[in-house]
Amino acid sequence: MSQPIRVVVWGENFHENHDEPVREIYPDGMHTAIAEGIRTHLGEGAEVETRVLQDDSQGITDELLASADVLLWWGHARHDEVSDETATRVQRAVQSGLGLIVLHSGHHSKPFIQLMGTSCNLDWRGSDDRELVWTVDPSHPIAQGVPHPIVIDSEEMYGEPFDIPAPDQLIFVSSFSGGEVIRSGATWTRGRGRVFYFRPGDQEYPTYFHPDVRRVIANAVQWVAPANGRQAPVVNRRPAGWFETGERLEAADPRLQV
Amino acid sequence: MSQPIRVVVWGENFHENHDEPVREIYPDGMHTAIAEGIRTHLGEGAEVETRVLQDDSQGITDELLASADVLLWWGHARHDEVSDETATRVQRAVQSGLGLIVLHSGHHSKPFIQLMGTSCNLDWRGSDDRELVWTVDPSHPIAQGVPHPIVIDSEEMYGEPFDIPAPDQLIFVSSFSGGEVIRSGATWTRGRGRVFYFRPGDQEYPTYFHPDVRRVIANAVQWVAPANGRQAPVVNRRPAGWFETGERLEAADPRLQV
Amino acid sequence: MSQPIRVVVWGENFHENHDEPVREIYPDGMHTAIAEGIRTHLGEGAEVETRVLQDDSQGITDELLASADVLLWWGHARHDEVSDETATRVQRAVQSGLGLIVLHSGHHSKPFIQLMGTSCNLDWRGSDDRELVWTVDPSHPIAQGVPHPIVIDSEEMYGEPFDIPAPDQLIFVSSFSGGEVIRSGATWTRGRGRVFYFRPGDQEYPTYFHPDVRRVIANAVQWVAPANGRQAPVVNRRPAGWFETGERLEAADPRLQV
Amino acid sequence: MSQPIRVVVWGENFHENHDEPVREIYPDGMHTAIAEGIRTHLGEGAEVETRVLQDDSQGITDELLASADVLLWWGHARHDEVSDETATRVQRAVQSGLGLIVLHSGHHSKPFIQLMGTSCNLDWRGSDDRELVWTVDPSHPIAQGVPHPIVIDSEEMYGEPFDIPAPDQLIFVSSFSGGEVIRSGATWTRGRGRVFYFRPGDQEYPTYFHPDVRRVIANAVQWVAPANGRQAPVVNRRPAGWFETGERLEAADPRLQV
Repeated sequence: MSQPIRVVVWGENFHENHDEPVREIYPDGMHTAIAEGIRTHLGEGAEVETRVLQDDSQGITDELLASADVLLWWGHARHDEVSDETATRVQRAVQSGLGLIVLHSGHHSKPFIQLMGTSCNLDWRGSDDRELVWTVDPSHPIAQGVPHPIVIDSEEMYGEPFDIPAPDQLIFVSSFSGGEVIRSGATWTRGRGRVFYFRPGDQEYPTYFHPDVRRVIANAVQWVAPANGRQAPVVNRRPAGWFETGERLEAADPRLQV
Repeated sequence: MSQPIRVVVWGENFHENHDEPVREIYPDGMHTAIAEGIRTHLGEGAEVETRVLQDDSQGITDELLASADVLLWWGHARHDEVSDETATRVQRAVQSGLGLIVLHSGHHSKPFIQLMGTSCNLDWRGSDDRELVWTVDPSHPIAQGVPHPIVIDSEEMYGEPFDIPAPDQLIFVSSFSGGEVIRSGATWTRGRGRVFYFRPGDQEYPTYFHPDVRRVIANAVQWVAPANGRQAPVVNRRPAGWFETGERLEAADPRLQV
Repeated sequence: MSQPIRVVVWGENFHENHDEPVREIYPDGMHTAIAEGIRTHLGEGAEVETRVLQDDSQGITDELLASADVLLWWGHARHDEVSDETATRVQRAVQSGLGLIVLHSGHHSKPFIQLMGTSCNLDWRGSDDRELVWTVDPSHPIAQGVPHPIVIDSEEMYGEPFDIPAPDQLIFVSSFSGGEVIRSGATWTRGRGRVFYFRPGDQEYPTYFHPDVRRVIANAVQWVAPANGRQAPVVNRRPAGWFETGERLEAADPRLQV
Repeated sequence: MSQPIRVVVWGENFHENHDEPVREIYPDGMHTAIAEGIRTHLGEGAEVETRVLQDDSQGITDELLASADVLLWWGHARHDEVSDETATRVQRAVQSGLGLIVLHSGHHSKPFIQLMGTSCNLDWRGSDDRELVWTVDPSHPIAQGVPHPIVIDSEEMYGEPFDIPAPDQLIFVSSFSGGEVIRSGATWTRGRGRVFYFRPGDQEYPTYFHPDVRRVIANAVQWVAPANGRQAPVVNRRPAGWFETGERLEAADPRLQV
């Protein structure tokens, strides 16, 4: 039997401690609700831990990144408190194969912006829109068992233009009561790592208890988990015929390609 | 008649001043040879300037980035001397619509790495390989008038894996005498800006005098030039029905999306 | 000065002659309104002709396909009357570089289905929905000068899943009053030919008089026009070193690749 | 435990019976060698059958297509003997979720051409080139455990331009002794079905006994197997609010979208 997927849910854990309405919805934190949903769906197929911004090393150590298969990221009001070093450590882990799922307002998190290379800006409105999440790629494993559409009664609106690179795969598009639309479920690969962005999940609504949202996230955990193992991208200086002889040249500074 | 494209060729300008063999090939600098090729092909259709790392502000000012349509970037031995601030300024200009052409060893330049989100690593060998540049998308404007293949008698080898995001459009694939291949001409869009990477052009060979290489670069200048003008990506807070009323809400901090 | 783009607007021309409400909106036919919009925007930059299903050879001759740069296709109730031979002739012309713009219910036309390889099915409702056409790729030339969103007061609804291959470029996504969404402006390349599908334009509404819809169509005419000339895809039997010697081997039957 | 993948290897089975050198390499037929490779790698994870052109119904019945998960296709000299009806039956099965792996000269088979919408032409030479198969997407499950490069000592050359739609995912690029290159491993989705094209496998060489080629094919069988079950694409006429009420309108002719 295959090994369980090692999953880390990272939460900013700010609103839950400062905004009473959020605390009422998520008394144990949003990260806990997200983790529960994954455990419910994947059972013994996943080992799920949580980390928060307030932990040592902002919850992100090299050991954790090396041993994890999948990292989920929820942040919003404290993106700037995540250090550049933490963000770059996450970015490098993704490049080596760590799967990353960025949720909702995480579109403006440092790791996501660094991996995308764009501003990741979008339009928004906080006023109880109904969100409909439509599947545009019914062949994709992340859409498995997901109703068409997912109906979320109340959510924040995010609208296009969403300043992201053209996705490798566009899976979901959402519409809102106000008529706006956004590419709400999309994938990219960076190095060996798969990245999935999923829009729903404002802190003011109980979205992470929604069974279809949980299903998408559980599917995504399985899909972003590294298929071919972890390996950091390298630079090799190669002699002619190396692939027949196995030879490899030394390069004092691999980035200096004379 | 349409306005000429405003082009800036940026050169690191190091090897030309420190390595005698390079100086002999490019006595006026590599940037000058690149600029000449563009002028030859586009004539009055382009206004071409050059900048080098040794210029004030590393050759990259806000005024220059605001007025330019297209920036070409050649760097190799001094990537680290380009400040993070300069690189980020270039990145933001691209996001607002500046066209960017990254040449050869510029794959490891800061602006390119920041725009791609990957390591941009690859394999390499410096030993006079013949490079054949094959067109895999003959419909693309950048391939217009380009022979199949382009034959470059002597070049440095760059080989896969080339750690880049999956290109929006793959136009050229090169093979080398040693049998290696690389995706050698590819495009991405970041915000409103188009990016083209073109592999040939090691400093030890007279590649930027090669008529077909010049043709590709001139085609690319026309293709990456902004089609829809320049505009930085923004965040808008939107009331319901804004697109019918023209209304726009204020947001104290546009990045704080409550 | 560059040559004008030679444009042919092909119309099924059935509803206009059989349904009184359609005749009132388009007394000269839908194809005529589409052609007028292109002429208005492109002026001397385009030579626009119209053809209809009732013409000799169903309006599609080899001469026409050879001399045209761009073909627009509107059909709905009589897709099956278009012969397989006509559809295949259009398909081959696209493969050789003819630009093709498929409008609204043309999603089920034979040429489009043959070029896509999918069923091109979708969901629909005819009940006066408001359509909002959102730009998701503001860098694309087809989006130039197009408001965000385009507001069309009354239209038929088309909804996902739209069974098309993943577009090379997704430019527009529409939402409807009922909450449905569809990828409403998308491009593909087939051989040397560019294909653009644009959703608005049900016969029961005056959509082809809408200034923004006309703008998109005019932009698309310019974008799908062949950049690199026309050339049918071929099979070449190649001796070793052919690209240096110019040699070409004979192959009795080019499809029999022994 | 999950069900075994039901795999059908379809062989044209012509050269093996008419060309003595081919018979010597593949005394039991090429399809048998391909099937053996899959069985070796996947064991109880796959149930593998073979069918040939000479079977009843050309080896392709509706029952077979309905019960299979994955179909592999090798054809070359008798593409035209495959009936249009057989090809269309395969195409529709793919659209409903059947995984399809097209091998080598199958690039000119009717099912592949119909699914791609292009000519699928390419250049070729039969003269014992060494083929190197380079991985350009090391994150892809089809590349799992595959050496970089795969070295195939003798093969037919296939070269660009390969007239295919831009792949959804480009996994392998091959080079040949003569210097030519081709996109040699690529994927597309059509409806719910995944398609993988893999270039190696000319009948004159023992390529389907090559362990790395077998590994790629076995990986591909797992990857193209339908993730979300089989379902033919449909057209639904939808009333407003259908997704809340569960209502569905009748449409006399689903293709007539008034």
